[in-house]
Amino acid sequence: MKIRLAKNSGFCFGVKRAINMAEDASARYPETVTLGPIIHNPQMVQRLKDRGIVPVESIEDIGSKPVIIRSHGITRGLKEELDNLQLPIIDATCPYVASSQQYVTQLSREGFPIVIVGNRDHPEVVALKSYVEGESYIISNPREIPVKRFIRLAVISQTTQSIENLQDIVTALIPCTKELRIINTICSATSVRQESSYLLARESDLMIVIGGKNSSNTRMLFKICQSMVETYLIETSEEFDSTWLEKKENIGLTAGASTPDWIIVEVYNKILKCLGNEQHSISSVEEIPGNKEE
Amino acid sequence: MKIRLAKNSGFCFGVKRAINMAEDASARYPETVTLGPIIHNPQMVQRLKDRGIVPVESIEDIGSKPVIIRSHGITRGLKEELDNLQLPIIDATCPYVASSQQYVTQLSREGFPIVIVGNRDHPEVVALKSYVEGESYIISNPREIPVKRFIRLAVISQTTQSIENLQDIVTALIPCTKELRIINTICSATSVRQESSYLLARESDLMIVIGGKNSSNTRMLFKICQSMVETYLIETSEEFDSTWLEKKENIGLTAGASTPDWIIVEVYNKILKCLGNEQHSISSVEEIPGNKEE
Repeated sequence: MKIRLAKNSGFCFGVKRAINMAEDASARYPETVTLGPIIHNPQMVQRLKDRGIVPVESIEDIGSKPVIIRSHGITRGLKEELDNLQLPIIDATCPYVASSQQYVTQLSREGFPIVIVGNRDHPEVVALKSYVEGESYIISNPREIPVKRFIRLAVISQTTQSIENLQDIVTALIPCTKELRIINTICSATSVRQESSYLLARESDLMIVIGGKNSSNTRMLFKICQSMVETYLIETSEEFDSTWLEKKENIGLTAGASTPDWIIVEVYNKILKCLGNEQHSISSVEEIPGNKEE
Repeated sequence: MKIRLAKNSGFCFGVKRAINMAEDASARYPETVTLGPIIHNPQMVQRLKDRGIVPVESIEDIGSKPVIIRSHGITRGLKEELDNLQLPIIDATCPYVASSQQYVTQLSREGFPIVIVGNRDHPEVVALKSYVEGESYIISNPREIPVKRFIRLAVISQTTQSIENLQDIVTALIPCTKELRIINTICSATSVRQESSYLLARESDLMIVIGGKNSSNTRMLFKICQSMVETYLIETSEEFDSTWLEKKENIGLTAGASTPDWIIVEVYNKILKCLGNEQHSISSVEEIPGNKEE
């Protein structure tokens, strides 16, 4: 039996950076808070909590502790409120997300109504919309396009959207406006990870997707793999069920952008254990064949 | 038997304007020249020639006569040469085409490589390209997209392209660049005329497309109608063949943006004559049922 991990699995640049910034902060301050979960991975959030980095839901719960801004960013209004509190702020907003925020501010100042391609409830999209200084529309598919004729229109995407959806929406927008300005803010880490997972799923008879069930990009990996082969989405090794291995030869693993390496390692070792092969247990994700360094 | 004319057939705004300007010029000057045919309709060009408005192929043939710039525009270099001759210039460039020229200059000055969607040999495209001050690509379909990664890219279209082709090309360009700026320079007269012809062809068992065989938008009308019903493209009533009418009940007529009304009237009267119905001959295009005023 072969067990392989899709290339580019696990932490993306923005998540890695946010976790590093949080850990640095916890070394400087006895207790810090994050406004909302810093990333969409409950286990990592719990591990940080154990180190004194506590997620809170609202600005009222901060007290006088230093605040870490989550990787998905926060609204402009909330950022201003935070600034007024004059507490230490550690801004762990993913630089790609921050760049999207700058684009929508700049383009709406130039007079472009903004179309945001994304899920209206996702914290990244909620924050992004708050940076628009004028007309804006959040749409997740071509059917939601406003019935209206525009002179100019700008399109920005949630970083974890699929390029196909962006293409479909742009196609439908072309007849609606004289000028259409598209900033492709889809993170390349997202598409690269999706492609690697797709390629591995094609050669596997079981796929295990590891990641937060609240993680948009993890759920997208699940959707891609599930369309091709028997697939399970698990947050931790405890959810793994040994009966899934029956009659399987090629096991593929993949993990979302917010899944820490130690959870991937635990899942791999759990599979080895189920196979009675514990002597080959590993301690780092780099030891898994077909891993991200390949 | 019913004979109907597609709505919006015949001269578009830009052609009407160019012909008016040429006729005004011929009233002021005993002889004028146009650089290339003023519009893509040989019969109208011949009629103007009879009034002393003579098309010439190159700047050397102008002599000292006043020059009319054709509706499709001319290259920037040629315009500069003309200016140096210090002759009277009547610029009959379609204002929509002139606007496209301004867009490519402005966008290329802002650092955007320019993609021109169109036919590289068409005079409008040749002229448009000359206004680019930097990198540019002329492509007529998605397969011609350059294999290259861009930071920014602007897209401009020949005014008579189909929106579907523009959409296909934009879809293929999205993954190639961070920023994509599209100016939809497709003339609405083109799409409106195509749609009316399509609707009439759907209800006809014979379509006659009237217009210059060198006219890009006329050929497009022919292609659309031909895909649905028996269709002929003719430049004048002389090309009409009475055998086409056998067993037909609903005859549809349509005409390109450069087809003068008098040719449409002649074709209509020729059909009446073939039907032995000459007593109902008409003298203006407004008398044809389903005409452009409807």
